[in-house]
Amino acid sequence: MTKVAVLGAGSWGTALSIVLADNGHDVRLWTHRKEQAEAINTTYKNEQYLDAYIPEQIQAFYELNEAIDDVSAIVMVVPTKAIREVCMELNNTLKQKAVMIHATKGIEPESLKRVSQVIGEEMDHYDYEDIVVLSGPSHAEEVGKRQPTTVTVSSLNSHNAALSQDLFINESFRVYTSTDIVGIELGGALKNIIALGAGISDGLGYGDNAKAALITRGLAEITRLGVSLGASPLTFLGLPGVGDLIVTCTSPHSRNWRAGNMLGGGQKLDEVLEQMGMVVEGVRTTKAAYQFAKEQQIEMPITQGLYQVLFEDKEPKDVVEQLMNRTKREEMDDISSLLSVNYPQ
Amino acid sequence: MTKVAVLGAGSWGTALSIVLADNGHDVRLWTHRKEQAEAINTTYKNEQYLDAYIPEQIQAFYELNEAIDDVSAIVMVVPTKAIREVCMELNNTLKQKAVMIHATKGIEPESLKRVSQVIGEEMDHYDYEDIVVLSGPSHAEEVGKRQPTTVTVSSLNSHNAALSQDLFINESFRVYTSTDIVGIELGGALKNIIALGAGISDGLGYGDNAKAALITRGLAEITRLGVSLGASPLTFLGLPGVGDLIVTCTSPHSRNWRAGNMLGGGQKLDEVLEQMGMVVEGVRTTKAAYQFAKEQQIEMPITQGLYQVLFEDKEPKDVVEQLMNRTKREEMDDISSLLSVNYPQ
Repeated sequence: MTKVAVLGAGSWGTALSIVLADNGHDVRLWTHRKEQAEAINTTYKNEQYLDAYIPEQIQAFYELNEAIDDVSAIVMVVPTKAIREVCMELNNTLKQKAVMIHATKGIEPESLKRVSQVIGEEMDHYDYEDIVVLSGPSHAEEVGKRQPTTVTVSSLNSHNAALSQDLFINESFRVYTSTDIVGIELGGALKNIIALGAGISDGLGYGDNAKAALITRGLAEITRLGVSLGASPLTFLGLPGVGDLIVTCTSPHSRNWRAGNMLGGGQKLDEVLEQMGMVVEGVRTTKAAYQFAKEQQIEMPITQGLYQVLFEDKEPKDVVEQLMNRTKREEMDDISSLLSVNYPQ
Repeated sequence: MTKVAVLGAGSWGTALSIVLADNGHDVRLWTHRKEQAEAINTTYKNEQYLDAYIPEQIQAFYELNEAIDDVSAIVMVVPTKAIREVCMELNNTLKQKAVMIHATKGIEPESLKRVSQVIGEEMDHYDYEDIVVLSGPSHAEEVGKRQPTTVTVSSLNSHNAALSQDLFINESFRVYTSTDIVGIELGGALKNIIALGAGISDGLGYGDNAKAALITRGLAEITRLGVSLGASPLTFLGLPGVGDLIVTCTSPHSRNWRAGNMLGGGQKLDEVLEQMGMVVEGVRTTKAAYQFAKEQQIEMPITQGLYQVLFEDKEPKDVVEQLMNRTKREEMDDISSLLSVNYPQ
């Protein structure tokens, strides 16, 4: 049994807490909202975020110092925009050395920093190399129901990666390890851009053929960006890439897809975000990726189109039509260019 | 305007005929069933197969020699098990030289031959090199409704490929070319194996997380088989691979998914095939791939599990659980092994 703190009691943080509790660990779930913590502790539910019974091994806290007291692992599942703030508080409070795992799928606009880099920067006693990421095709709702799920953990510190794998793995929650932390973090973050696009396509009334083409092209462009930032292209072919893209782009469980769907249906971004009531990481990630692609001259037509819809008030329909009507050319040219690989003819 | 014969008036043959008619071509749609041909010509519908209005430029025939009279292109869309028979008849009847395109997604059991190879063998005046394949993520139902769709054509004869691209391309039906005919044909055929598996997973009540993992692993194993037969691994990352997998595995439009879904729901193969009333290519393709993988010692756990369900009466639930509970290991090992590529570290 390990004492673990999970920081962030949204749907994914709650689902991961349930996995840890199922594995017999002592779980301390932190939220900054007092009434949410009290509701979890008294009703064994976290109604706004996840339709699941919260096991008794999970105790909720609203004071960070209490949540992290004596834990030997910390799982950070807060939105990207809150990461620095939570890290600063953690930095002032945490006394012991705990393994730091994060499961946040996003990147920081402007800096384009990954979450592990941000944590490494903000925490005095942590190096970037020691941080672990957990990512993969995983709707929280299904994890809460113990439906079979596969994820990947990655860290440059292989000891920490193996330890995290052992913490989480069980019969229905399968955990793989990878050494490509750059690819794992970027795959999880960038796929949300394509999920917004897929939602828009569905919201406009286009069919599965169009969406499959969009996802395939999307895989190409997020791989291109990932490789330029040091990721292995092969990571994008695995669970953190293709797998997560499929789950996020083809299911109404996905909040990024849902937000895109509302945009395609004619609503404006402000309305959509207000209605969602949850963080839509893809919006921030689109901005970050767009800026970087522009600077580095990386071809990302879907991201570019989406940026125009989100921030320049362009009509979704015009953007999708523009994407579909790119001139005919060799499919393979397009695909070869995305991976810097030599392959046998 | 080109005079084109489309052989096979199932849902895909009918949808491709509509694309050709929209492009102003004179289309001669052949079915071996007299009453079907007559119904199409009098009602402008092909009710059993496609919910769409059949334009007047499409004329249906039940005599093969009449259908191919004076045409300069032939599009073959018959089930794989009928290909040799139709080719033999065509060989005895066809007088002129016509470009031969096929859009059949399957491979021949025992021989593991691709459709273009079978056509090249059976037709005296055609070399394998001149045959064109058309494949991609494309539900016929959506093509019939002119919803945006992307496909790829491929032939070792680049002139024929370009000609086929010109025949089919229009605003909603986007046609790319590729030189990897082996990959294009195998991608289209092998994805049906994974679609059966995805249907089974859904039929058993597993969720999107499990299905995404299955599709991702499925992509790995069909790429492995494809590469061993001379395909480029990159083809499997594009529209004919990832794209077609997504469309086939996540939509009830797909008859292979539907068949799998019924199997997962507890029905036996015989019942399922009888109820479908349409050819389920994935069943034959699973047999072919299983045999080849066994001979060549290629790791294809999903195909193997599916073979056991289809032909050895194993319970779908046991197979899926066995697939999920493979021992923990490095995700990247698994993925790297599937592509014979060198990639930058």
